[in-house]
Amino acid sequence: MSQDQTTTLDAQPDQGRRKFLNTAAFAGLAGAGLSVGLSACKQEQAAAPAAAAPAAAPRAAAAASAGAAGKYHLEPGELDTYYGLWSGGHTGDFRVLGLPSGRELHRVPCFVPDALVGWGHTNESKAIMGTKPDGSLRYTVADTHHTHASYKDGNYDGRYAWINDKINSRIARIRLDYFICDKITQLPNVQGFHGIFPDKRDPVDPAINYTTRVFCGAEFHTPLPNDGRDTENTEKYRALFSCVDAETMEVRWQVLIDGNCDLVATSYDGKLAASNQYNTEGGHHYEGMMSAERDSCIFFNIARIEQAVKDGKFTTYGDSKVPVVDGTKATNADPATALVGYVSVPKNPHGVNASPDGKYFICAGKLSPTATVIELAKVLDWFDGKLADIDQAIVAEVELGLGPLHTAFDGRGNAYTTLFLDSQMVKWNIDAAIKFHSGDTSAQYVVDRLDVHYQPGHTNASQSETVAADGKWLMVGCKFSKDRFLPVGPLHAETEQIVDISGDKMKLVADHPVRPEPHDFIIFKRELLNPKQVYSLDEFPLAVKDPKEAGVTRNGNKVTVKITSLAPAFDPREFTVKRGDEVTIILTNLDKIEDLTHGFAIPNHNINFIVNPQETASVTFKVDKPGVYWYYCTHFCHALHLEMRGRMIVEA
Amino acid sequence: MSQDQTTTLDAQPDQGRRKFLNTAAFAGLAGAGLSVGLSACKQEQAAAPAAAAPAAAPRAAAAASAGAAGKYHLEPGELDTYYGLWSGGHTGDFRVLGLPSGRELHRVPCFVPDALVGWGHTNESKAIMGTKPDGSLRYTVADTHHTHASYKDGNYDGRYAWINDKINSRIARIRLDYFICDKITQLPNVQGFHGIFPDKRDPVDPAINYTTRVFCGAEFHTPLPNDGRDTENTEKYRALFSCVDAETMEVRWQVLIDGNCDLVATSYDGKLAASNQYNTEGGHHYEGMMSAERDSCIFFNIARIEQAVKDGKFTTYGDSKVPVVDGTKATNADPATALVGYVSVPKNPHGVNASPDGKYFICAGKLSPTATVIELAKVLDWFDGKLADIDQAIVAEVELGLGPLHTAFDGRGNAYTTLFLDSQMVKWNIDAAIKFHSGDTSAQYVVDRLDVHYQPGHTNASQSETVAADGKWLMVGCKFSKDRFLPVGPLHAETEQIVDISGDKMKLVADHPVRPEPHDFIIFKRELLNPKQVYSLDEFPLAVKDPKEAGVTRNGNKVTVKITSLAPAFDPREFTVKRGDEVTIILTNLDKIEDLTHGFAIPNHNINFIVNPQETASVTFKVDKPGVYWYYCTHFCHALHLEMRGRMIVEA
Repeated sequence: MSQDQTTTLDAQPDQGRRKFLNTAAFAGLAGAGLSVGLSACKQEQAAAPAAAAPAAAPRAAAAASAGAAGKYHLEPGELDTYYGLWSGGHTGDFRVLGLPSGRELHRVPCFVPDALVGWGHTNESKAIMGTKPDGSLRYTVADTHHTHASYKDGNYDGRYAWINDKINSRIARIRLDYFICDKITQLPNVQGFHGIFPDKRDPVDPAINYTTRVFCGAEFHTPLPNDGRDTENTEKYRALFSCVDAETMEVRWQVLIDGNCDLVATSYDGKLAASNQYNTEGGHHYEGMMSAERDSCIFFNIARIEQAVKDGKFTTYGDSKVPVVDGTKATNADPATALVGYVSVPKNPHGVNASPDGKYFICAGKLSPTATVIELAKVLDWFDGKLADIDQAIVAEVELGLGPLHTAFDGRGNAYTTLFLDSQMVKWNIDAAIKFHSGDTSAQYVVDRLDVHYQPGHTNASQSETVAADGKWLMVGCKFSKDRFLPVGPLHAETEQIVDISGDKMKLVADHPVRPEPHDFIIFKRELLNPKQVYSLDEFPLAVKDPKEAGVTRNGNKVTVKITSLAPAFDPREFTVKRGDEVTIILTNLDKIEDLTHGFAIPNHNINFIVNPQETASVTFKVDKPGVYWYYCTHFCHALHLEMRGRMIVEA
Repeated sequence: MSQDQTTTLDAQPDQGRRKFLNTAAFAGLAGAGLSVGLSACKQEQAAAPAAAAPAAAPRAAAAASAGAAGKYHLEPGELDTYYGLWSGGHTGDFRVLGLPSGRELHRVPCFVPDALVGWGHTNESKAIMGTKPDGSLRYTVADTHHTHASYKDGNYDGRYAWINDKINSRIARIRLDYFICDKITQLPNVQGFHGIFPDKRDPVDPAINYTTRVFCGAEFHTPLPNDGRDTENTEKYRALFSCVDAETMEVRWQVLIDGNCDLVATSYDGKLAASNQYNTEGGHHYEGMMSAERDSCIFFNIARIEQAVKDGKFTTYGDSKVPVVDGTKATNADPATALVGYVSVPKNPHGVNASPDGKYFICAGKLSPTATVIELAKVLDWFDGKLADIDQAIVAEVELGLGPLHTAFDGRGNAYTTLFLDSQMVKWNIDAAIKFHSGDTSAQYVVDRLDVHYQPGHTNASQSETVAADGKWLMVGCKFSKDRFLPVGPLHAETEQIVDISGDKMKLVADHPVRPEPHDFIIFKRELLNPKQVYSLDEFPLAVKDPKEAGVTRNGNKVTVKITSLAPAFDPREFTVKRGDEVTIILTNLDKIEDLTHGFAIPNHNINFIVNPQETASVTFKVDKPGVYWYYCTHFCHALHLEMRGRMIVEA
């Protein structure tokens, strides 16, 4: 085992330098299933020579007893101490976990219909999701990647979370009082919308110490406008970086850029947003996308961009009215006027994260085994004309292992980076990395390594991206599970692993399977949220507040049926309509007790939705088959739940 | 605390008899949220006076150390020892759990589209789900209740599982080699299809020692035929009990019955199927459905029914060609010719379960605090003319507590019944109950009680409904979670609780939250299954077996695009179509390695699906917007996953 901080590729002993892996090495990985043929990273420090557990051991020897961070096996009835907000991946929804137990407490539907709730079936949810002229949903698939929540004074304030849909370039807002989606916006002229991050305060107005913008990075470059012209004109291919208003959810402005944006991070002072970029080459195939040795981390000067928009220095594309400013590298070379700055980072970086002390952004190398540490004060110096070359803002670029992707923080000066190819977490000290980079080869920046299972993507730690990072729990989202769970056919679960990071050594404490594939997530103390358990009737304009208001009204062939639910009965318990009618059912749940939700289904009419306590929802459908149809409660509510039903009589 | 086996209702001390609760008592429960105002059942035996834990204690004092049944907190990487197959409730899918960890390993889409897999989006899955003439899905909601698996020699044989959809009267089959749904059948002339159970062997041919039929009970009675006639003629309202062929999935026959069927159970000798029935009154409102003091457990004589069908003694309804035999009570009074027998059981029973020794069916009372034990040999005696009154097959009817719903078994002669209103599990001894019922008041049949949280519905134990019941683990599906998890807004998770039943006392070991609302489930040893992890190319008629076959073929405005995936690239990496084309994409995943799944999404075209190793799937859609659309891999596959994309160019 090598005792210095250079890494060796055991499978290819002749290749002494792994700094930039070449295409051939990756093609080999593909054929071997990503991990076979490549041993775990053997980079170790003299000070910590035996940190990595044997990579081949399928069952880690972590003890099941309580860790220093606290109990992770909760007793029945014991509550978790942290919330986790999670992206659902291509399930297209938003997940809520309890930690440290790792239990999934909730899934909030947003981009994709949900048969349990009736999301995408009720008129109210269809209005949020968006419909085509014929009334059907515009989209029923999604690919969520990142979720982040609103800030105040550098910590979460419990108002909102946001989540993206990469397939259809949508951003959804989740209200954290009721855990529901209330708005969805589609970004114009954008494909491959990937990273999002809210700002943490306003760059100009110190009174605005909370989130008012959400920044959105887009990967795929297309001809702009993308209307069938210029499909083979590489010069016309560009991507856009977008700013969405946190309250109105309208797109405020966009920035035209070189390269493909990936993730997004924001500074604690509100002045900068950043996005790591791959494919600054503008390639159309993967070989072309990785031909250059370095790509970029791009920094957006928010105040200058908004001034440019005010000054009318923008264009628009196609039908969109959103102002687009020019952030391409060529037109932003002069720091005195630059809206954006391009900091050079190694080959196809993936992941950019802001350290909780507010000083650094860290870009993980993906195809380079390095992390690049960029000092924010120096980037601001460049914009202020005090730094000749923006790349002088790089204060460290150190080797970590193969396939670094994302980085979390413990608030004690350490970073935790996922190593996709090595199937490891590496814990490293930022100050020591800076010292090492500046020439002090005695600085031991790698603190610990932990095998994870397998191919980790996102990671995050409790309160990691806030001023209150507490270094207790780390979660690792592993893309492959292979042999970690009982076999269930070709489609494998992914593995979410929980790591106790409260001590010097990372300690793996639990594996959780999850439907593919959750991406980014945040973890924060439960005290930061105070959700409501029961709605108020007044929140719903259509509420049927009294059973006396229930009943049928007809306007031509349009029939409105107002129904109330109060366990164990609906009111009315039968109603009659005619073949060919368009029926709108408005249902109010008059039960007031926490957890007393009712469902409402009609056989053979594709109707099912729920109403939580004091909630109102409506559905509209055609009746074209005469007969008796028993509508019934689908959500267990009472000892007479099975008997809670009524007759829809459709006359011929 | 009373020391005998009668129960008292503390909140209503004047009501000394809880045998049959009246409507007023239940209405009171409804207003108080089901559990408030009613204390936990205080029925205890002298021999076990303190079995029940205090009902008010929100946090059970179960120790977190390993129970006698084995470890339930698995180390990271440690595999579960049991599979659990679970109904998803109105999520409309099929869940796979690992036990004793309680982790959800998989969800198999069947009745409802699934954005992750592309279920309901690919042409292959749409063909299974069923479409309307315009090509859209017939149904996109479902309400699954019960799942059971195929048997051989009284134990699971790992071929199939079945699951029902109550809303649209559908039954789906799940292949347990690949954990996929391969067939869905809609039952004709049925509403409120609730319980299902496979037979365990053939009633006539001893060589058929495995499942060949699946029985389906239906709740809602409608006019037959249900075409708008007779909507107010109560005499015309009837329900049907259906038999589906396990291989062809066609409906073999149906039985016209009185009352509303609920759950289904089958005998180990293959001769009888049973269904508990409520609403033998034929009421349309819940008061009418519970006016009689007793309802029925109905027994179907399979051999006689199939002989009657052979003999042409059937009718049909509407467009359906399925033979329907007459099983109504009035026409089946003579045991010599009866196809069915009606055993009387108390008020609105819920749940019927076959004991693993093959001797008894147990019907839980729901609105009666009792369980009724019916001896199968005596029911057969009745059909054979050896028993004057079929009710003489009742060998016990004993009080258990408030709201008994479902029963599991440990293979040691004990039954475990959920008490919905008492929020308890009660463990009771069947032989002792029979003795008590026969007059031996010293027989102590209640063995133990355990508070659960809250309002339990279904329960099952490891291998419970097989000859190999092993009495290790019990799961309890609780309908309300209330304060058991961190608050996540008005819609609460439900609680699945794991109980160690290996000792004399039940021991609650873990709480798991779950999306509402899982219903029935089975738990069996992992050795009984051996799923496949990789498909074979030959299983897919459309497979693109070589990248050389990939490419575009055109037939008028119908375009077929054959694509292969091999990480990190699709082949072809771009293709061109014209505005107005109908495009069919056929994608084969040529990667062979376990867990190397690819996704395929096209922005703004509502396309996303996955292909597992060696799988082929296809989608068909219209292109009507000229431009460049980057199709991309949505399922993390490789270090160059982000770069795995290509261009669909739509010409104007």
